[in-house]
Formats: sequence, structure tokens, C-alpha cells
Amino acid sequence: MKSILAIHGGAGTITRSSMSEEMEAAYLQGLRDALEAGRIAYLRGDAAEDICAAAVVSLEENPLYNAGKGAVFTHAGDHEMDAAMMRGSDLAAGAVAGVRFVRNPVLLARAVMKYEEHVLLSGTGADAFARLQGLETVSNNWFDTPHRRLQYEQALAEDIIILDHHEKKFGTVGAVALDLKNNIAAATSTGGMTNKKFGRIGDSPLIGSGTYANNETCAVSCTGHGEYFIRYAVAYDLSCRIAYGKQTLNDAADELIYKVLQDAGGEGGLIAINRLGEVTLPFNSPGMYRGILHENGDVEVAIYRS
Amino acid sequence: MKSILAIHGGAGTITRSSMSEEMEAAYLQGLRDALEAGRIAYLRGDAAEDICAAAVVSLEENPLYNAGKGAVFTHAGDHEMDAAMMRGSDLAAGAVAGVRFVRNPVLLARAVMKYEEHVLLSGTGADAFARLQGLETVSNNWFDTPHRRLQYEQALAEDIIILDHHEKKFGTVGAVALDLKNNIAAATSTGGMTNKKFGRIGDSPLIGSGTYANNETCAVSCTGHGEYFIRYAVAYDLSCRIAYGKQTLNDAADELIYKVLQDAGGEGGLIAINRLGEVTLPFNSPGMYRGILHENGDVEVAIYRS
Repeated sequence: MKSILAIHGGAGTITRSSMSEEMEAAYLQGLRDALEAGRIAYLRGDAAEDICAAAVVSLEENPLYNAGKGAVFTHAGDHEMDAAMMRGSDLAAGAVAGVRFVRNPVLLARAVMKYEEHVLLSGTGADAFARLQGLETVSNNWFDTPHRRLQYEQALAEDIIILDHHEKKFGTVGAVALDLKNNIAAATSTGGMTNKKFGRIGDSPLIGSGTYANNETCAVSCTGHGEYFIRYAVAYDLSCRIAYGKQTLNDAADELIYKVLQDAGGEGGLIAINRLGEVTLPFNSPGMYRGILHENGDVEVAIYRS
Repeated sequence: MKSILAIHGGAGTITRSSMSEEMEAAYLQGLRDALEAGRIAYLRGDAAEDICAAAVVSLEENPLYNAGKGAVFTHAGDHEMDAAMMRGSDLAAGAVAGVRFVRNPVLLARAVMKYEEHVLLSGTGADAFARLQGLETVSNNWFDTPHRRLQYEQALAEDIIILDHHEKKFGTVGAVALDLKNNIAAATSTGGMTNKKFGRIGDSPLIGSGTYANNETCAVSCTGHGEYFIRYAVAYDLSCRIAYGKQTLNDAADELIYKVLQDAGGEGGLIAINRLGEVTLPFNSPGMYRGILHENGDVEVAIYRS
């Protein structure tokens, strides 16, 4: 069955036993809402990158997911967000790292991509660019949620960077899409790790690590322990396995996530799509928030390993 | 002839007609000094990453090259530097972006790599990490040189980001090395582009874009128009052409630099080494400051296309 959009909302130790029915229903509804936002964009003929943007904005606005509203707290007690976007038709790419004031980081990544001069902007300079581009900015505490503040206070008390070493959660959101003109694109957005220090940047805004798109191979968005995804250049590795190794999308993604990354101790997953409308959503952690929109309008959403 | 170290000091419109004899001699001596620093490290049995660090520190300390002392000015009139290091034996990697106070950014990249928890640190957080690690810090204006200030004032007056659109120069320094234990590594360091704005980060500190090392394939450091090197994931692409495409180091590098990048309009070059001590130094710009140290102690340095 041909698919046109896949999304993720992060991977990690997400188990049925640790989740109330109400929470589970809310997370699943968030995935359905994001797919619906993407479906509307698809049907009105939006380009693949704009379908991705619509789905990712929906997840950024959802306080449950660690991107935009509901982003985790840094060690300093505020929010620093990263996002990236790449277009498969011409390899145009845009990304931002450590932004604090733009309401929807993925829209800033798109603005950087369209502006063309640079690929990756960071920090206060990136926020200044957001204002110049007329994107909506908010105060940094607009991103606060009671749930994330509690996680932060616990992490601070225990002096740990990842929320819980026994219960790793890698909050990221992402989308990969195929549009009516048969182009593909990818986008990723994240608040990073709770209690992160030293201006740490993960894989999400790094083209080739957490995000990549090329019409010839695939569009991919990753979620997981970012340092592994950087060292293994996961997003671009998937593309190269297809381009140079002549693997299928599915085989390439399975080998990468279940063998290479798993053997290295790199926890996480990815979503990918190609121009045929084939999708793959492998993850080696107990759960990954994920969803697929098929061309016929059917929707699938899931959290745990089936 | 087996080689153990290759270095570069940036690529671009570097032509014999635009260079005085004195300047040429000074640039070549800087390359020889860096190779000598690497040779001493090699002979005392240093690991590949430390041979790279020795050579790159020498170029950072040299005010002629755009890294460390002599780094270009940002739009705001100060210096923001990037660096990365990767070790081929275990894919350990460390990088920093937008640092302002650490005297030798490559040593901070190495410290991040050894600290292991993160791969990429940025901005004031990265400088704070440098102080915690006991690395030497300096005031930001320590990096000033009269030559770079003049370039900056010209760029500011003309409101251009790259120094000169007719005379593109991509100042970066880098090294790739093979040690006595037959491990390889890569390191890159840069001051970025003169008059850069918005916290722009180029390819140098991005693992897989400007810097990559894997014992199974090659160690590579890039220099050029960073945005192209990010979108084409040049450093990791070279590795994948060898790993999945079964190309030789030389064929892979030539196709990437002279065909893929050149066709896309991406100006620059790279240096790479493998465990056999084969090196390649392709560049599609008029010049690239470059040097090779062979196992027998012979040294080659060059600037222009031969």
C-alpha cells in the first residue's frame, strides 16, 4: 500500500506498563492530529517539505511531545531547541540549533532552507534571523509545561543529563513525506535532552545525522541517543546503503537500526520514505511514537513494539 | 610511497599572481612547521588523533591561517571558531561550534571526544566546558590580526559575507594521520567566513560533513564552501563510496570533488588517508594549501594546482 507520510514522536523506554490509558490515548491522538495536518497539506498540493512542516508543527504545538511547546528544560532551566529540514528534489537544506524564542523551530529551519545562503544557524543569531523572517517569536517560558518542569527538577536533583538512565526517552518529532509531484522531504524538531549542559547539540539539526532527503534514495528523520546517530551518520548512511550498496529501503534500515546501531549500543529508530511511497519505521528501543498516512487516506498509529 | 600525515590550510582562489614571494614562502613554511609538529608526535608514538592535534595546533597558532590566532572576524566584529576530531579505531568523535575563548579549538574538540558523553558542544557552554577541562583560554581579541581586521572592514563596507565573491577563499585547517599502531584519525579547525552572521555553522565541526574517520575506510578533513559540504555530507560520502561502493580512496575522492561537487557548484577540496598510508588531496578550486609527510620523513608542500 502506497504511503505518503510517516511521522515519529520520539523513541525510548516507552512501555505499556508505564503508561496510563488516558496518556496513551492522548499520545495516539497527537499522532493522528499530526497525520491529519499532513493530509490536509498533501491534498491541497503542498510540496513535500510543507507536508512535513504541517505535521511537525502539529507535534511542536502538542505539549506532550519534546519539541516546541513542551520542550524539555536545559541545565540552566530554560529551553534550547533544534530543528532541520531537507528537500529531496535539489538537496536544499536548512537547520537551526539552540534557538530559544521562535515558536515553531521547524518553520525557522524551512526559512533557512529557502533563504539558501546558509544551512545551519545557531543560538541568538538564529533567533535574530527568525525575527527578520517575520516568524512568530515567544518568550522562552512559553515553552514551559508542568510535566517538563517536574522532570527537570528531578534530573537536577539527581544531577543526570538524560531524564532517567533506567528509562531512557529520546524526545524528538519528525516527518517524512511524498508529495503529488513525487518529491520527498524530511524534517525533525526537538527540545533535546533534559538537563543538557554545555550547549550540547544532538543529531536532529545535523544534515546527514538526524535528517536527510534525496529523491534518488529516501527521506529520513531519526530519533534516539543523538551521539550515536552523529558518529554513525545514520540518516546519510541509510541513503548510501541504497545508492552505493544497492540495498532496498527496508533492508538498509533494518541492518542499520537492528544490527549496526544496536551492536554499538545506540538506542533509537528512524522513519523513512522513498518516491515509490514505501515507508519503514524501525526502532531498537522498547517503543517509538509513530504513524503512517497511506495514499488512500488510511492511518496507522502505534507506540510499542508489536 | 607510504604517507603518515596530510594537512590542509584552506582552499579557494589562491593563485600565483595574487601572492607575493614573501607571502608564498611564509605560507609554505607554515605547512612545513605543521608537518614537523606532526612528525615529532608520530615518532614518539602518539595516537593518530594526537598527531592530528599537533599539526592542527601548529596551524591554529599561525596567524596566516584562518583558525585560532588569525581567525576571521564575524559580522559582530569578534571571532567564533569551530573544530572537530574523529578517531577511526572506535568512531569516537568530538566537536565544538561557535567557541570564542579557547586558545586552541582543536584541543577542545579532542577533550569533548575523550569526555565521551557528548559529541558536539556549542557557544558559551562549550567555552565553559573548556575551562572545566583546564584548557587555556584567552580574551576574544587575542585572535585579532591586522590582516583579518582589514578583510573584515572591507567585507562590512561591502556588506558581503564571504570576503570576496570574485576571489573566494575558504579558510580552514585540517589534518589526517596514520599512527604506528595503524590507526587513523582526522581533525579540522576554522574561524569560518568573514562577516558571517546569524550564528552560522559551517561543515568543519560536523561529523560526516567536514570531518570523519573510520579505520575500515579512511580519515578525511574538508575545506571549501561549507554549505555544499553539509548538503553532500562529503566526508561521510567518501567513506561510503569505499565501504558500500567498493571504490578506491583515490577514485572515490576524485569522483566526489571533481564530479559531484564541481557539477553542483561546490568549491573546495579534501585530504584523506587510509590504513595503507595512501593519501589523496583533491580540490576543484584554483588552489589549496596542502602538505604530506611520508613515512620515510620526506615532505611535500604545495599551494597551486600543479
